[in-house]
Amino acid sequence: MKEMSDGAFQGSSVARLVFPFSEGDRTKTELLGGKGANLAEMVGLGIPVPDGFTITTDACREFLRNPVLSASLIDEILAAIEQLEKNTGKKFGSDTNPLLVSVRSGAKFSMPGMMETVLNVGMSETVAQSLERITGDSRFAWDSYRRFIEMFSKTVVGVSTEELHHVTSEFVAKTGKRNTAELESDELRVLGQKHRSLVESVLGSPFPDDAFTQLKMSVIAVFRSWNSERAQIYRKRERISSDLGTAVNIQAMVFGNFGDDSGTGVCFTRNPSTGEGGHYGDYLPRAQGEDVVAGIRNTFQLDYLAKTDELSYNHLLRIMKQLEDHYKDMCDIEFTIESGKLWILQTRVGKRTAEAAFRIATQLVDEGLITLDQALLRVNGEHLVQLMFPQFDLSQKPAEITRGIAASPGAAVGKVVFDPYEAANRALEGEHVILVRRETNPDDLPGMVAAKGILTSRGGKTSHAAVVARGMGRPAVCGADGIEVNVAEKFFTCGSYVVRDGDLISIDGATGAVYLGEVPVVASSVTNYLLGNIHPDRDAVSPVVASIHRLMVEADGHRRLKVRANADTPEDAALARKMGVEGIGLTRTEHMFLGERRTLVERLVLAHDAQARDVVLAEMESLQFDDFVGILTEMSGLPVTIRLLDPPLHEFLSSITDLSVEVARQEERGEAVSDHQRLLLKEVMRLHESNPMMGFRGVRLGVIIPELYRMQVRALTRAAIAVERSGKPALVEVMIPLVASQRELLHIRSGLEDEIRLTLTLNNFDMEIKIGSMIETPRAAITADRLSLYSDFFSFGTNDLTQLTWAFSRDDVEASFLPRYIDLELIPFSPFESLDIDGVGLMVTMACERAREVKPDISLGVCGEHGGDPASIDFFHRAGLSYVSCSPFRVPVARLEAGRAALADRIHAGASTI
Amino acid sequence: MKEMSDGAFQGSSVARLVFPFSEGDRTKTELLGGKGANLAEMVGLGIPVPDGFTITTDACREFLRNPVLSASLIDEILAAIEQLEKNTGKKFGSDTNPLLVSVRSGAKFSMPGMMETVLNVGMSETVAQSLERITGDSRFAWDSYRRFIEMFSKTVVGVSTEELHHVTSEFVAKTGKRNTAELESDELRVLGQKHRSLVESVLGSPFPDDAFTQLKMSVIAVFRSWNSERAQIYRKRERISSDLGTAVNIQAMVFGNFGDDSGTGVCFTRNPSTGEGGHYGDYLPRAQGEDVVAGIRNTFQLDYLAKTDELSYNHLLRIMKQLEDHYKDMCDIEFTIESGKLWILQTRVGKRTAEAAFRIATQLVDEGLITLDQALLRVNGEHLVQLMFPQFDLSQKPAEITRGIAASPGAAVGKVVFDPYEAANRALEGEHVILVRRETNPDDLPGMVAAKGILTSRGGKTSHAAVVARGMGRPAVCGADGIEVNVAEKFFTCGSYVVRDGDLISIDGATGAVYLGEVPVVASSVTNYLLGNIHPDRDAVSPVVASIHRLMVEADGHRRLKVRANADTPEDAALARKMGVEGIGLTRTEHMFLGERRTLVERLVLAHDAQARDVVLAEMESLQFDDFVGILTEMSGLPVTIRLLDPPLHEFLSSITDLSVEVARQEERGEAVSDHQRLLLKEVMRLHESNPMMGFRGVRLGVIIPELYRMQVRALTRAAIAVERSGKPALVEVMIPLVASQRELLHIRSGLEDEIRLTLTLNNFDMEIKIGSMIETPRAAITADRLSLYSDFFSFGTNDLTQLTWAFSRDDVEASFLPRYIDLELIPFSPFESLDIDGVGLMVTMACERAREVKPDISLGVCGEHGGDPASIDFFHRAGLSYVSCSPFRVPVARLEAGRAALADRIHAGASTI
Repeated sequence: MKEMSDGAFQGSSVARLVFPFSEGDRTKTELLGGKGANLAEMVGLGIPVPDGFTITTDACREFLRNPVLSASLIDEILAAIEQLEKNTGKKFGSDTNPLLVSVRSGAKFSMPGMMETVLNVGMSETVAQSLERITGDSRFAWDSYRRFIEMFSKTVVGVSTEELHHVTSEFVAKTGKRNTAELESDELRVLGQKHRSLVESVLGSPFPDDAFTQLKMSVIAVFRSWNSERAQIYRKRERISSDLGTAVNIQAMVFGNFGDDSGTGVCFTRNPSTGEGGHYGDYLPRAQGEDVVAGIRNTFQLDYLAKTDELSYNHLLRIMKQLEDHYKDMCDIEFTIESGKLWILQTRVGKRTAEAAFRIATQLVDEGLITLDQALLRVNGEHLVQLMFPQFDLSQKPAEITRGIAASPGAAVGKVVFDPYEAANRALEGEHVILVRRETNPDDLPGMVAAKGILTSRGGKTSHAAVVARGMGRPAVCGADGIEVNVAEKFFTCGSYVVRDGDLISIDGATGAVYLGEVPVVASSVTNYLLGNIHPDRDAVSPVVASIHRLMVEADGHRRLKVRANADTPEDAALARKMGVEGIGLTRTEHMFLGERRTLVERLVLAHDAQARDVVLAEMESLQFDDFVGILTEMSGLPVTIRLLDPPLHEFLSSITDLSVEVARQEERGEAVSDHQRLLLKEVMRLHESNPMMGFRGVRLGVIIPELYRMQVRALTRAAIAVERSGKPALVEVMIPLVASQRELLHIRSGLEDEIRLTLTLNNFDMEIKIGSMIETPRAAITADRLSLYSDFFSFGTNDLTQLTWAFSRDDVEASFLPRYIDLELIPFSPFESLDIDGVGLMVTMACERAREVKPDISLGVCGEHGGDPASIDFFHRAGLSYVSCSPFRVPVARLEAGRAALADRIHAGASTI
Repeated sequence: MKEMSDGAFQGSSVARLVFPFSEGDRTKTELLGGKGANLAEMVGLGIPVPDGFTITTDACREFLRNPVLSASLIDEILAAIEQLEKNTGKKFGSDTNPLLVSVRSGAKFSMPGMMETVLNVGMSETVAQSLERITGDSRFAWDSYRRFIEMFSKTVVGVSTEELHHVTSEFVAKTGKRNTAELESDELRVLGQKHRSLVESVLGSPFPDDAFTQLKMSVIAVFRSWNSERAQIYRKRERISSDLGTAVNIQAMVFGNFGDDSGTGVCFTRNPSTGEGGHYGDYLPRAQGEDVVAGIRNTFQLDYLAKTDELSYNHLLRIMKQLEDHYKDMCDIEFTIESGKLWILQTRVGKRTAEAAFRIATQLVDEGLITLDQALLRVNGEHLVQLMFPQFDLSQKPAEITRGIAASPGAAVGKVVFDPYEAANRALEGEHVILVRRETNPDDLPGMVAAKGILTSRGGKTSHAAVVARGMGRPAVCGADGIEVNVAEKFFTCGSYVVRDGDLISIDGATGAVYLGEVPVVASSVTNYLLGNIHPDRDAVSPVVASIHRLMVEADGHRRLKVRANADTPEDAALARKMGVEGIGLTRTEHMFLGERRTLVERLVLAHDAQARDVVLAEMESLQFDDFVGILTEMSGLPVTIRLLDPPLHEFLSSITDLSVEVARQEERGEAVSDHQRLLLKEVMRLHESNPMMGFRGVRLGVIIPELYRMQVRALTRAAIAVERSGKPALVEVMIPLVASQRELLHIRSGLEDEIRLTLTLNNFDMEIKIGSMIETPRAAITADRLSLYSDFFSFGTNDLTQLTWAFSRDDVEASFLPRYIDLELIPFSPFESLDIDGVGLMVTMACERAREVKPDISLGVCGEHGGDPASIDFFHRAGLSYVSCSPFRVPVARLEAGRAALADRIHAGASTI
């Protein structure tokens, strides 16, 4: 999570709480927020910015702890207003030469539209009259008055939007006009007065006409808006810490609603959707900022300004160029023109799509603004992931009706079904269905498996729906709180839309978008490139593929971490190899005993004597031999790490409850219970464990049933010999799971070495087979120095290490308390999605340090799911691991992120400037 | 385990392998073994010891790795023999002036009778003739010959004892004599020859007459005997590492079988059973050492020697005094008199009973030999434990038929029953039964619960029987491999004894002894003293109580660790207080919802709305209030640590399997399944967890169901107020279980603080209630610095910490692989019995260091079961904890051990000499 570390040592020594724009710069986002820092930066650049000052985030945090404006803060604000009066030659609250100000939020991380803004603060009926007199523009004066009353009512006093709208529309209707823009100045004044009366009835006291009172109330409203529900939801989605608080920017008003040579607009220095060059923007004459955002009037494209006010237009283009050159990135700019004079109200590095991110990054390189290294830091693995999934073709601009949490990526189209069993039935009949639920629970599983995609109105990235969907690779949009699901009546509403059972919708699990109707799906050219099916050197490729290629080459050049894949079958291995892996970091041999082979383990457990067991082991060996030959052949020349059997044997058997119920029912019905059933039930009971994750599994199987691991390494050694003899080099690494002590490791290692030596001798062959240990128990991590003596390599099993370090059984906690913990910000994100650096990461660091003390060159890898997570990869790079291993489809992400991590580390170390 | 650390970094640079007695001393037990070091010490003291030399343990370890005597070792042995020949003026293997030697094992830790000894090495028929000629004593010569052949046959060649006995008894019968002592010299020669023929038929080659061949074979036999089965079993029982190896002592023979003024004996400088002063020993004229041990001839008391050889007797008494003064402890001495000349063959600090340990320790103080501090180091907690259980009155010398592992202390008398269900039934009818099984499994539980004691022929201290018995406080003797259990026929044999169903036996779980018949049980006066019922200052007490009192006072004076008790009820608290606790370290509030109160949690889980839940919570609060008032009243003035609810809620409900089977059976029978059943099954399924130990429990309950913890602290605060108002000071500490992160701790702490403050305010009262965290997740341990900011104290939950650090679910691993791991020495002992210092201990140390960095004075306690284990207490002292908490009956042990640990630490630090 951004800025939310587990170990925040609290304490702040509050110094100054208010800074004029002239004192800040863009590095001070922590203190001044993004908006304030960028305003200050622009002032430094000589760009025309209305004068003003920023109240710091410190002040906000202080307010959130103790919700009153402190005397010292008020003093500082008054002093800053005084200075502002001097600079502008106007007077705040004056009837004769009034100064009006805007009061705007601005946090460290941009949270567009989530917090409050109050414009025209300092306004009153007398001030409006004075403005009317000074400017000679009645309409402007009373429009500003009306705007202030409405905005203040809503934002500061908390009058509901509905009530305000009701008053407005009733009044507009009475005048026979279409909207407020058509109202005359007198009508605007009356409308303002009507809103004012509404406020007074809500407040039960007179409307505050005093400018300073308005200012203080506005500042408090902005502070409070940090904890508004929508701001909280947004922060959770974006992983922004609730501790940060917002700054408040107070700025002299300029008026886009002053006359026909006034107006307001928003522009981008490049296209934020596609990354194409050129200027993009919207302009609205005779308007204030909120009109553009609110969408109540149709905006003009930026060209309109070129025609109506060429001077301002050219000035704006110069500033856009200046800002882009200065920020060396695509900028997003808000501006206002007052009587033909251009003012810049805000700028920031603009948000963009994944495609735009790659294209803009390399464009800026080509334009000489940044280096390729810098470009690499502008993109990330999540951008790449979004471009790898089959995508919706959005060229026809389908209707996006809402946006939820992008819970499991992929594009899915299908008919809406609300009942999970119906979903399963209709899928059986060949229909493509999207399961729509408020939230899901384990009972919904049949429907989730059958559906092409899943849409829920509640729950976050770790909700049941999200976790299960990701596990199945099923696209899912979760927590789409814009929709209201009525399961009983089989429909959902989304604003004014009503979507019924059987209606077609399309959901995009990579963006969270929900579309009405069928949106066409196109294969991802990026995936084609990453699989090596197309290549810029020989094929015509799209601009985004060309950009990605340049940046992948750069990342591969920088990265020190090798990237391996987790692959349990020859097919997975082949896929991984296409994706550019440098080896297999984890082959789970238990996956070779699932499906129809499951009965093998059952037979092993039930074997009544050594002979019967040997028969089963021989069968297992033959199957494993084939599996290993397949994988080693696909990966010839690259290292392959095979993990010996890990799960408890009872995981391969029926559950104790199912079996007990089955037998009980047969008994009650007077049906014979077979010997097999009785025997199986007996064994299942014997093997039953209260906490199997910490039970008879991993290396413990190898100690208690030595024939099992010996069979596995025999099959593996024979396979390696066969592959070598077919002319392909086999680089084999045997990995022992769940090791906790040196003696245990030495014991099992000796047995395996004997078996390997014997097998090699019997086959008259010689080769090296490495034997290493997983580091997945806390004890292994803190005693890694001792384990390293008997280990050719280590591989961190970060899933189990996370479970044991936290005492979090993943299966259990994700269904019980973890979502609530994340809601309460007791934990910033699921430690199974991104490594808990403060805790589990500390275990990893200790293990690395201790192991290297004894064996400086020991190979250290990671094969848990975190191997494909960007933030975790960055940590693994810094911890000095040798490689990360992840699922084949995450390999390109890992390559990119490993390159970025290496680069970031070099910069951090000051070893190079880029 | 003695000398067995997890992290043994191997490597030995072997230097000299043979040392003459004149070069050693008693500190060199590691190299020379106990026997060799003490022989050397006696040589240094000028005590008459037959000359000889010691082959080091290094040589043994080298032999165990590569089982041949190295050329360099043989060279060293030959050189030492040459020196021995010079010193004695005899020649090894000579026909004219032969030197005979004994070859005796001697490991670092005494393993009496477990390894081999060969006497009279260098003997042959020609040598015997030569001895006959030189000494003129035919009987002596041929007795020695016969002894050598028999001993060499058995020990070195491996001829079975049965075969040798058969030959001997057949021969003795033919002569018409009663035993070998009555045989004439000719007969002895013939018997020797018969044994010799037997050996040759077993060997298939001539008997080795060459002295050096005999010597080398004997050395090898002693080396090998280190790994004999009985030696391995003994080591496992005594926790001696298999890595140590034994030394070998080669010593010129002196002959107790030489004539009537010769003999051999064993003596103690004090009574090893009771600790009383005086000389104790056995003497056997005209005999060699093994005759005393073998018990084939009746020995005389030491006084006999005073009458027959006053000179030697007085000499022996002087040496006994000299040795005791030198060793400053009770010594155990083996001696031989050859033709009126006294030789000392061995001495060591003597083994003793628990009672003798205490009495001797204080006697030596009174005699000015040692200080009281030194005396304290001579006793330990296990001695104390043995004296605390009700004990058998052994004054009538009941027949001990065998001895197994002392698995669960206590004395039990009852009728033997083999079937667990029959045991349960007969117990119901009021019979006292002892359940006897080969080994137990969970099916035997009803019988184990019903029995007064448990006896098994297999399994060690961590076997099912041992673990369950200790858990129930039921006396148990396990792994009594001297008995053969026939469950089907309902009897067991023990040597020549046959014990049938219904026969009375008595078992002593503190010593492992099994007696035939009913041995009377006497209450322990030691326990009476420790409970404060009797006191040396006002009552006449037994000598052992007087000793214990002096040493307990001394221990209490030294110890820095405070001792608290784990107590869940007012009764436990009262008991603990009598035992001298300084507070309660753990009150498990879940124990307050077991038994008939179990339905409360079920009702809480099934509550259909907030109101229904509040009703249950109110009932719970009322019960908890009473519980807390009771405990706080008992402990007034001492701190009481209350742990908030810890286990998963489903632990209070029926099991998912039982419930499913019950419902399925009803359905099949067409019986109605009640709403309650359905609802319960649904909730049980919802709450079911794959790994509950790492699931929804501990602090997580407090976060998700805040009302629950709030109810608990409300009840506690009200109780504390009530107790304070009754005039008794209540020192309350609230403990939060399973904390893993700082944010979680802060969150829960804030809620509890609010509730406490509110309750105090409502009651118009003020007091301090401390809030602390358990450290039982690895994450808590390694982030203890951050947690300490929001914790008034820490308490290590070493059970859970052990489980999570090792990934050992105790319930599971003790039944599956842990016993085998201990057998294989992959782990020295169960980490649940004694703290794993290398792993879990490292976690504790890290946590202590980190916490103190932030909060130097933070109180650090331990409330896991290890708080009562001596080795663990020593570690906790060194880690600098503030207190240990253990079960009330372990409190005196913990006090004694804490004192010893403090003393040992001071000596180690060199801060004092004692």
